[in-house]
Parts: sequence; structure tokens; C-alpha cells
Amino acid sequence: MNGVDLLGAVAGAITTLTFLPQVIKTIKDKSVKDISLMMFIIAAVNEAMWIVYGALKSDWVIILTNAVILCLSLTMIYLKLAYTHKKTQP
Amino acid sequence: MNGVDLLGAVAGAITTLTFLPQVIKTIKDKSVKDISLMMFIIAAVNEAMWIVYGALKSDWVIILTNAVILCLSLTMIYLKLAYTHKKTQP
Repeated sequence: MNGVDLLGAVAGAITTLTFLPQVIKTIKDKSVKDISLMMFIIAAVNEAMWIVYGALKSDWVIILTNAVILCLSLTMIYLKLAYTHKKTQP
Repeated sequence: MNGVDLLGAVAGAITTLTFLPQVIKTIKDKSVKDISLMMFIIAAVNEAMWIVYGALKSDWVIILTNAVILCLSLTMIYLKLAYTHKKTQP
């Protein structure tokens, strides 16, 4: 693996975990008012598209990377709905 | 361009604009308490890495896609710092 491929592999790994700090902060703070639900819905649909693309290309890196990001996006969608619902209860 | 490549191009375009709903919501609401600054710092560093990777590979799609996402990430970092600072002023 040369330097350029190593850079691509590291960048890909970081891309996979980009949403993680937001998931951790949201679980800790239990507050979602400022967070865009639409962003995470678009992200989830996008990752599903990349997973289909990776499957059609038999590219396991694309499949696994986007499967992890999809899990993080779905987690944020769940947290956004759960904590928004919790706040609206009397 | 066959179906698979079209899927990749559309997925790439959507990836580019994933952060846009959050930028719009933050500009509208002017509230950033729930937003993870670390996520957007990691995203910005990550996109810079992808831009270097794209340059080394002479791949304009990777360069342009990540340049747009980098602008959105830097916008969110600015908004997070600006609206956090504004709230702490007496």
C-alpha cells in the first residue's frame, strides 16, 4: 500500500466515524432541538444508495463504510424522534 | 454512463449536500447548543484529506465534492462558534 492509498484508507476510516461525536453528545445531553432531522434522513438514504452501489460493484470497503455510517444516521434519527417526543409529553 | 455509474453520481451529489439542511436550520434558528462542534471539525479535517487524495489522484470529482462539503463544514464551525459566543455575552 503506497502513501496515497494509505491516505485514502485513513480518510475513509475517518469518514465512517464522522457522525460519532454528535451521537455521543446527543446521548449525553439528551437534547435535540437544534439538530436537523432532515440531514440525518438524507444521510441515511444516501448511505443506502452507496451500499447498493458497493454491492453492484462488489466493493466491500464501500459497503462496510456506509453500513457503519447508516447505523450512526439511524441512531441519530431515533434519538431525534425519541427526545423530541419525550419533551412534548405533558 | 450505465445504471451503476448513474447511481454513484447521484449518491455522490447527495453526499455533497448532506450537511445543507443543518446549515439552513442553524442559520434560521440561530441556536447551536445541541450541535457537536467536534463532528464538524473532524468532518473538515476529513474533507481536507480527501481533497489532497483527489489531487494526488487527479480526480476532480473527489476534489470538487469534498470542497463543497468542506465549505459546509467550515460554515457550521463558524455558526457554532458565533452563536455560542453571542449567547455568553452579558
